[in-house]
Amino acid sequence: MKKEEMTLSKQENQMKEAKAGRIDRTFVNRILDGLTEQITADRRQFHKNPEVGWTEFQTAVTVSQRLKKLGFNVSEGRAVIHDASRMGVPPESTLTEAYQRAIDNGFDKKALEPFKGGFTGVVGTIVFGEGPVIALRFDMDALKIEESRSEAHLPAREGFLSSVAGIMHACGHDGHTAIGLGVAAVLSKLKPFMNAGTVKLVFQPSEEGVRGAKSMVKADIFEDVDDVLACHLIGNEAFGKIICGSNGFMATTKMDVRFSGRPSHAGSSPNAGRHAILAAASAVVNMHAIPRHEAGASRINVGTFNGGTDRNVIPEEALLKIETRGEQTEINDYMRQYALRIIKNAGEMHGVETDVTLMGEAIGGKSDESLVAVIKEVAEAMTIFDDIVGIDSHAGGSEDFSYMMSAVQAHGGKAAYFMVGAAPVGTSGVGHHTHEFDVDERALIASVQVMIETVVKRLS
Amino acid sequence: MKKEEMTLSKQENQMKEAKAGRIDRTFVNRILDGLTEQITADRRQFHKNPEVGWTEFQTAVTVSQRLKKLGFNVSEGRAVIHDASRMGVPPESTLTEAYQRAIDNGFDKKALEPFKGGFTGVVGTIVFGEGPVIALRFDMDALKIEESRSEAHLPAREGFLSSVAGIMHACGHDGHTAIGLGVAAVLSKLKPFMNAGTVKLVFQPSEEGVRGAKSMVKADIFEDVDDVLACHLIGNEAFGKIICGSNGFMATTKMDVRFSGRPSHAGSSPNAGRHAILAAASAVVNMHAIPRHEAGASRINVGTFNGGTDRNVIPEEALLKIETRGEQTEINDYMRQYALRIIKNAGEMHGVETDVTLMGEAIGGKSDESLVAVIKEVAEAMTIFDDIVGIDSHAGGSEDFSYMMSAVQAHGGKAAYFMVGAAPVGTSGVGHHTHEFDVDERALIASVQVMIETVVKRLS
Amino acid sequence: MKKEEMTLSKQENQMKEAKAGRIDRTFVNRILDGLTEQITADRRQFHKNPEVGWTEFQTAVTVSQRLKKLGFNVSEGRAVIHDASRMGVPPESTLTEAYQRAIDNGFDKKALEPFKGGFTGVVGTIVFGEGPVIALRFDMDALKIEESRSEAHLPAREGFLSSVAGIMHACGHDGHTAIGLGVAAVLSKLKPFMNAGTVKLVFQPSEEGVRGAKSMVKADIFEDVDDVLACHLIGNEAFGKIICGSNGFMATTKMDVRFSGRPSHAGSSPNAGRHAILAAASAVVNMHAIPRHEAGASRINVGTFNGGTDRNVIPEEALLKIETRGEQTEINDYMRQYALRIIKNAGEMHGVETDVTLMGEAIGGKSDESLVAVIKEVAEAMTIFDDIVGIDSHAGGSEDFSYMMSAVQAHGGKAAYFMVGAAPVGTSGVGHHTHEFDVDERALIASVQVMIETVVKRLS
Amino acid sequence: MKKEEMTLSKQENQMKEAKAGRIDRTFVNRILDGLTEQITADRRQFHKNPEVGWTEFQTAVTVSQRLKKLGFNVSEGRAVIHDASRMGVPPESTLTEAYQRAIDNGFDKKALEPFKGGFTGVVGTIVFGEGPVIALRFDMDALKIEESRSEAHLPAREGFLSSVAGIMHACGHDGHTAIGLGVAAVLSKLKPFMNAGTVKLVFQPSEEGVRGAKSMVKADIFEDVDDVLACHLIGNEAFGKIICGSNGFMATTKMDVRFSGRPSHAGSSPNAGRHAILAAASAVVNMHAIPRHEAGASRINVGTFNGGTDRNVIPEEALLKIETRGEQTEINDYMRQYALRIIKNAGEMHGVETDVTLMGEAIGGKSDESLVAVIKEVAEAMTIFDDIVGIDSHAGGSEDFSYMMSAVQAHGGKAAYFMVGAAPVGTSGVGHHTHEFDVDERALIASVQVMIETVVKRLS
Repeated sequence: MKKEEMTLSKQENQMKEAKAGRIDRTFVNRILDGLTEQITADRRQFHKNPEVGWTEFQTAVTVSQRLKKLGFNVSEGRAVIHDASRMGVPPESTLTEAYQRAIDNGFDKKALEPFKGGFTGVVGTIVFGEGPVIALRFDMDALKIEESRSEAHLPAREGFLSSVAGIMHACGHDGHTAIGLGVAAVLSKLKPFMNAGTVKLVFQPSEEGVRGAKSMVKADIFEDVDDVLACHLIGNEAFGKIICGSNGFMATTKMDVRFSGRPSHAGSSPNAGRHAILAAASAVVNMHAIPRHEAGASRINVGTFNGGTDRNVIPEEALLKIETRGEQTEINDYMRQYALRIIKNAGEMHGVETDVTLMGEAIGGKSDESLVAVIKEVAEAMTIFDDIVGIDSHAGGSEDFSYMMSAVQAHGGKAAYFMVGAAPVGTSGVGHHTHEFDVDERALIASVQVMIETVVKRLS
Repeated sequence: MKKEEMTLSKQENQMKEAKAGRIDRTFVNRILDGLTEQITADRRQFHKNPEVGWTEFQTAVTVSQRLKKLGFNVSEGRAVIHDASRMGVPPESTLTEAYQRAIDNGFDKKALEPFKGGFTGVVGTIVFGEGPVIALRFDMDALKIEESRSEAHLPAREGFLSSVAGIMHACGHDGHTAIGLGVAAVLSKLKPFMNAGTVKLVFQPSEEGVRGAKSMVKADIFEDVDDVLACHLIGNEAFGKIICGSNGFMATTKMDVRFSGRPSHAGSSPNAGRHAILAAASAVVNMHAIPRHEAGASRINVGTFNGGTDRNVIPEEALLKIETRGEQTEINDYMRQYALRIIKNAGEMHGVETDVTLMGEAIGGKSDESLVAVIKEVAEAMTIFDDIVGIDSHAGGSEDFSYMMSAVQAHGGKAAYFMVGAAPVGTSGVGHHTHEFDVDERALIASVQVMIETVVKRLS
Repeated sequence: MKKEEMTLSKQENQMKEAKAGRIDRTFVNRILDGLTEQITADRRQFHKNPEVGWTEFQTAVTVSQRLKKLGFNVSEGRAVIHDASRMGVPPESTLTEAYQRAIDNGFDKKALEPFKGGFTGVVGTIVFGEGPVIALRFDMDALKIEESRSEAHLPAREGFLSSVAGIMHACGHDGHTAIGLGVAAVLSKLKPFMNAGTVKLVFQPSEEGVRGAKSMVKADIFEDVDDVLACHLIGNEAFGKIICGSNGFMATTKMDVRFSGRPSHAGSSPNAGRHAILAAASAVVNMHAIPRHEAGASRINVGTFNGGTDRNVIPEEALLKIETRGEQTEINDYMRQYALRIIKNAGEMHGVETDVTLMGEAIGGKSDESLVAVIKEVAEAMTIFDDIVGIDSHAGGSEDFSYMMSAVQAHGGKAAYFMVGAAPVGTSGVGHHTHEFDVDERALIASVQVMIETVVKRLS
Repeated sequence: MKKEEMTLSKQENQMKEAKAGRIDRTFVNRILDGLTEQITADRRQFHKNPEVGWTEFQTAVTVSQRLKKLGFNVSEGRAVIHDASRMGVPPESTLTEAYQRAIDNGFDKKALEPFKGGFTGVVGTIVFGEGPVIALRFDMDALKIEESRSEAHLPAREGFLSSVAGIMHACGHDGHTAIGLGVAAVLSKLKPFMNAGTVKLVFQPSEEGVRGAKSMVKADIFEDVDDVLACHLIGNEAFGKIICGSNGFMATTKMDVRFSGRPSHAGSSPNAGRHAILAAASAVVNMHAIPRHEAGASRINVGTFNGGTDRNVIPEEALLKIETRGEQTEINDYMRQYALRIIKNAGEMHGVETDVTLMGEAIGGKSDESLVAVIKEVAEAMTIFDDIVGIDSHAGGSEDFSYMMSAVQAHGGKAAYFMVGAAPVGTSGVGHHTHEFDVDERALIASVQVMIETVVKRLS
């Protein structure tokens, strides 16, 4: 920390020379230089200790403790997570196991307590003065993927591979969380020079499967927010590229569907059974046959189908994992409702009961042009980016950040979601959610800088 | 009629010589010799004037007038047809048109009156004395088939082709009705020599599509019946063959299903429609996939599918003609109920309304062994049959005679259904319901004889 | 014709006063005033004698004779229609019947000859001098719709209802053809004042079902064309609205699919059949289930399904009328190929043969911005339009004009398709392809004017 | 062994008193009394050490060693198992693990050697003299079922529960193998008194899933066999019941089907994938829709369906476990061929590759009436059976003993399969293949006696 402190005092001197109330790029760059080591270390620490959605106990405690140390006012656990709005919470055993791992890893029991049961959200607030409230969102969860041990994979070479079998940060959220702590550190240092506005750093659990954001919105975190921003590292786009605003969020619904029939011997009494696989197969074909929607892109997928026990038994159970999407929320509504109707009737058709569990949901979302323009201006003024895109509308993926965007836009605020190229040096990167996913760590610093400068612009 | 009368008086003389109360084969044969011409003429008359189910106006009047002339007590129209139990009654326009044709052909309006609106059944009763009641059933309806004009086809060569475009006796019911009138004529002549029992001749409309029998049963015609018999001419089995009892009736249900959706432009607003063809197609595939029944043969068929108006319009309507069958009534029940469930849910799945109309129904049926044995004895004593089968159980077809069998068996009576080979001379015949279907007219006389001798045996 | 001539000489006088080589709006307006009666009369004449695709014998002869009279160089029949590229040609009997109707209506046999067999295209060329070649396209075919006799329907009130049962101009092509003749008349009058360029008037058969345009393109009509334009009257948009360029053409393929199985008795030998309806139904469900395309809107529709003969027969045949669409040609290609694969395999799955007939096809198309800008400038300068839209991209419909656009754009030319509001006075109009479809005849004159002024601008 | 020896010498004495060449019931009963303890002990030993199909290493060695000790001529391993005709052989790892377990349990490596790799059949032959050859078949394999530890379950109470997790004798094959060894012991004792014929004891692996019998037939074991018999203990029929001949074997085919598609992201590029679950679901629905067969009962079942990895990924793989059945071999052939056609085409329809592995197969089979009559005579003469059924034709299950029946019948021999009620004392038993399945051990002795007396009758 010594180098950092030194740098800071140098900065303070420079600042005094500058006009009061003005923070320039050079100043921010110097702060960032001093934080690079910490941000990278944080990212690697998170990478090494990945936690899946609703079990981000170690991550949340780390975030909470750091924010408090940096002088943020911190809310956490049930205060920022609305219980009934959580989706896709894993079974008790998974929660307990992850919680125990946190304890085994030496995390403080008292600090863990607020997050128990899967309330792993943290919000840190810093007030500079009167004026606009800006929220920045960082997602923290990892994926159920076994990480590659290949020497070509940086975490393997540098020794920060996942320490948990079958779980891995393969979507960059380790980086996002580290960016969030980096932003916190910078804001803390900028505090003396800021005189207006408030910044909320929102650390969200369970973005994967679009399960967590709604519960933070329903906890009323965004009621006073004027601007909300989030960023995403893109592991297979070159470092130097930035998309300043994404419009391609599809509204989506994730559902688990259970078909419960009745078993019987397939040879001697086929009519006595109620064929869960036959019902589910009929649902699969019919769901894919839902007519297209005139208003834009729609999607449906039955991603997994598991049913039956024995070849010679009319199968009693079948479980489908499905998702619908729509370019707009109304299209996803159309798809979801139609799919639900098909599921119910495909079951009844074959005397089979059906049970649908909502596992995740996101609405559509669009970045506001005016806020994207600010980000673009920031990016253009930086020297890092050589490929700057304004708004990108290619649909396909989904993000529950859309709930936060919508909540803020609903009362007249602005939202933007920007994406930063982060393909590992010398490569074109690999797809997200694959076992060799990695990011160029320079993109973390760049992202912190974009966020900070955008905040400063908005609060000046 | 002269020849007949002459023959008769000869018979009467012979009879006087014989012992009172005994009717032997020679005597019956002589009566039959005298009736051959009439029976053949009747059959050709009916063949020339075919009438589809519930429109047998000319046929019914012909039967009614003849029975009365022969001294039978005749009930007809609504007295023998229970209105609410009729199935598959054609539209008003069809009824009216056929009725008008009868008038145009010179049939007496007053005689037609009782049958108006499609109550085209006739029952003639002859009482010999105390004792058992025997019912004999004859079906009268034709089919919607355009008759062949080929010279190879006897009706063409001999000039008694159907006079009605698109309608044809292609299942031998013209012969059955002529057999019934032949039986009536013989019974009338035998009356002086019989001293016990009653015979009811039941002329049934609308056997095709199994639509008529139930309505005669529900009119309580069979409440006092001890034995019930029917016969069927088999156009593609050699003359000389008789199957004395059929057990192969499958229970069956005939249904018309309408899927009513909502049209919309397939290019600009596919989601605004409700796709009747998609719903119906899903029903088709799922109905054929109804699991087999452990207890025996089951069947399902979607025989016709007609829907939609234009290639570029989401189709509003689709109409299916379907049937289910079961080796036993319970199996058909299983199939029908499952099919109905599929129809309803295939519709709801796609937001499409469904409407099912019952068009015909028959239960399963089995001939009684003891009654079949009598027929077999009769057949064996005749010189005509060289291929005599007892009970045949090969399933496949359906017959609504099963309702009559069941009604009689329910109160302890006996039933039998025999089948007489009738392939046209020098050929192996063609399948029923095809446009060159024909029968060897000798089989008509043989059938009359089997019926008469069986009746005589049962009443002696 | 007297009034017209008088007006003309007045115009010529005025023209002499004007500067040579300059044609102003006032001049064109005056010509149009003189043609209004003729254009309206033409439209009503075509409306009264509607002819479906490839049978536009009367229409084509009328067009040909008029163009010749106006001094155009005319090509027609096989010279402008490439035989093998025609799609969805109706059966010989339909062609013969329509041809005979033309003869019966007094059309000259010799004049009809070139169009015999369904080669009902006409191209009229007028050369002003060196310079660009502009093609204007007018489609001529009617629809199989029975016209409304309601008094609310102008053709009924004014006595120009369709004289052919079951056929009607319900998509405005009567108007388009009349516009074409109006344009011809104006160009003929402008000839003395033009000194550069060539105009080709392309009268196309069989646009409905997108069957005709490709055959004109393959006849090499557009090889030397620099600009190509077409317009469409919109019966349910207010008069006064113009969309200067449509981009919403979906590529599309129209196909008739025959499933040929084998009949058998559904009760006695279901396994002996090959179930055409079962195979077709499986194809229907699977075709609608083709996965969505990432690149944009896709469509599939089974618009009609007709199969089977009797309820109790495994159906031998089923006929589907289907169409695919895609926002871009590649998307339609994806849909068509996938659908063909499904059809083939759904047949083979059930031992059923399949046969696909291409009934129509169109590619996607986009209007060129620069040419649309000219049209927009023209519209803005006119006083008629109060609702002027530039490019409209809402997808949904299809138009085989896209082949002509693509042919011209392929060698560097420009294309545009504009749409003119034409809801009948005092109404908001009814949908195209419905039995009360009608257009405000003022829109015809307005369309002629837009075309003429655009041509003049491009050739000045 | 002491008691047995003593008993034997007693029997021998009695035998000397009897007439030479005559073996009466009393004599056999006495031998059986002496063997009861051994047969029961054998059954419990096998129950405790269950081995699934093709891994019956311990069982086969036990059988082989015993037969040799009893003076049988023994063939085993590849000599009696035709490699290429084996079906459903488990993966190498399963074979190796089971083999190692046999070694760990102290079985002699040299004795195990012939069975290595899953050739776990044994045939013991005893020659009495010239004359007929009788084969008796005993199946040896267990099931993948976790045995109940309930005190209500005899093996739990008496301490002979399965020692292998997840594997259990739940279909009575432990009893069948013990019966086989009991028969061997009796035959060995009877040898001095027999003077004609040969008996082959056929110990078959892998009857479950109908995987093993064909490979023993193809090893030509039955070429010289005149009579072949097998018995099955029925755990849920009362002890005292015997069905002397079963005709209810359905021909059957067991297949594993792999659908291999191509993954892609379900949101951003659904068209780039090849949807294995969609293809498999279409196959499921269509396979269940195979039309019924006129000649008798048919069956199809998709018993398990497992596919896909993630909700948001177009699934790459799906695996179905299916079976077809037919009341006759030709019906199963029809079902199998139709199902294979559907699988192939459902795959191709969606661009998905399919791969089918034959996992088991049996043909239909019927017991010969004359041989069943002998068994019935035997059973009637015994005092144990109070419910004796001749031939039972209820279809539903399948047995690969049918291959052996067919092989013997093909050259004019006779076959019979009898079933012995074996519900545990005081209960009505539980279904086969359930975790509390058990048999009344008295039924073992009764079965040995039926077999011995039938053999003696046939060789006398």
